Amino acid sequence: MAEALRARGVRVTILEPGPGVLHTLVDDDLRPLVEAVLQRHGVIVRRERAVGLDDGPGGAVRSVLTDRGERIGCQLVVLAMGIEPNTDLAVAAKVRPGDTGALAVDDCMRTNLPNVWACGDCVEVRRVIDGKKVYRPLAPTAFRTARVAGHNAARRGRGQPKAFPGVVGAAAVKVFDLEVAGAGLRLDEARDGGFEALAVTVRHWSHVPLLPGARPVHVRLVVERRRGRLLGATCLGERGAALRTDVLVPLLWDGWTVDRIRDLDLIYTPPFAPSLDPLIVAANEAAKRVHP
Amino acid sequence: MAEALRARGVRVTILEPGPGVLHTLVDDDLRPLVEAVLQRHGVIVRRERAVGLDDGPGGAVRSVLTDRGERIGCQLVVLAMGIEPNTDLAVAAKVRPGDTGALAVDDCMRTNLPNVWACGDCVEVRRVIDGKKVYRPLAPTAFRTARVAGHNAARRGRGQPKAFPGVVGAAAVKVFDLEVAGAGLRLDEARDGGFEALAVTVRHWSHVPLLPGARPVHVRLVVERRRGRLLGATCLGERGAALRTDVLVPLLWDGWTVDRIRDLDLIYTPPFAPSLDPLIVAANEAAKRVHP
Repeated sequence: MAEALRARGVRVTILEPGPGVLHTLVDDDLRPLVEAVLQRHGVIVRRERAVGLDDGPGGAVRSVLTDRGERIGCQLVVLAMGIEPNTDLAVAAKVRPGDTGALAVDDCMRTNLPNVWACGDCVEVRRVIDGKKVYRPLAPTAFRTARVAGHNAARRGRGQPKAFPGVVGAAAVKVFDLEVAGAGLRLDEARDGGFEALAVTVRHWSHVPLLPGARPVHVRLVVERRRGRLLGATCLGERGAALRTDVLVPLLWDGWTVDRIRDLDLIYTPPFAPSLDPLIVAANEAAKRVHP
Repeated sequence: MAEALRARGVRVTILEPGPGVLHTLVDDDLRPLVEAVLQRHGVIVRRERAVGLDDGPGGAVRSVLTDRGERIGCQLVVLAMGIEPNTDLAVAAKVRPGDTGALAVDDCMRTNLPNVWACGDCVEVRRVIDGKKVYRPLAPTAFRTARVAGHNAARRGRGQPKAFPGVVGAAAVKVFDLEVAGAGLRLDEARDGGFEALAVTVRHWSHVPLLPGARPVHVRLVVERRRGRLLGATCLGERGAALRTDVLVPLLWDGWTVDRIRDLDLIYTPPFAPSLDPLIVAANEAAKRVHP
């Protein structure tokens, strides 16, 4: 949204009273890179909360009042409120929501009511890394849960039921020319979930830096300290950060350790990837921390 | 080489008497796409073998004679001879080569001679998909075999020996603006290796095609017919084909089936990937063939 408005020449201020921009995707370690991109593109980020609005003539907004008593002049206010599942109809029908507030379903997408299945953006799903139920309303998850619910609802006791195997929770967002992508657990999530975890961050290159178009890629791996099992990852860069996160998705599914990851024979071709891919460089660094 | 010469305005003819250009990476199904790119950039490909040269004044080459009796005028001839391991020194020392002609080593990089290890571009390595010994002289493999050989040669009976787990054989090449990448077995290799295999090819998009810069991506999956185990893959496209092949590398290592691959929650973000990634679209098509 900030990017689209900047492209039209609109001055943009983001009021972010929480832990920081994109805090569900990146933690403190890499957030300065995101903030630097916003700043370079003229977006002002303030660690303040909006607490009120001033109306001008005709009821149009004229300024936003913040919790520090500042008044920021504006002509347009966009409220980013987050996403909540609309479960009113289901709850009225006595379908039980889970702890996330989204509808609780089993792996076959069955609700607590007989012959009622649920899927899509109103259900919570199991995260395979820690088994926790999470609310991840993303289109690919909606497709996949719908396929399972539809199959099971239509099968009328014939054939095998389908099961939804869960998610690792991979997502990305474009911040101007930066790809910001993550999968699995952030370090704070891993620790909150009871993992003894550590994180390493490396800066390497999208491809061989002698060649045109090479850009830095930052990779942060969150790993379980004792055996080096991969728990989560964040990749940032102007090229290839989102697809590199995709490489880590199956590794998160199957609980690969950094020792195995460093032995992956990823492609080395100078215009596409350096001789040691950023993911391998990160796994090597993480292995040094796991086996000091 | 053809691309570099064309960039300098040199007229280029490739004589390719074998199965076709890039035949170690792409099979007949996708080769026309590569040939079309060469043609669009003014490179002439002829299915002929060079059988002789005509010298001009001062011994400079003037033309190449082909096995069809054609004479192609030229000022420069580049011979692409393939790669052979230089094993002369080792073989003179009675180190045994394997069937590929490269030096035979066990997983610890030991040769047949006591206290002699070998690594790098002169050894053959085990391909994990079929257990076959292959000659894949690529830099990441050289790094990894060197680490194992060095560790084991230096350990003098102390600690644990390191083992080299093998390769799946991932590689890519840039053909003008096209990324051509492959991993694992081609269909013909899979069948020659005794697998009952099938292949599917899909054409999808690098990212949501409404957005700028979206380009077609072709994905070809080679799968074992009975259970749908992934045996190999080829990806072609102007964006993201090489990194998408990297996503398949761990799947080849661990023998994922197409049924599992279609459930991977790869990133969906419109500027980076469509809601169903080309890899998922290919896995869906392959699953239809495995469970008709």
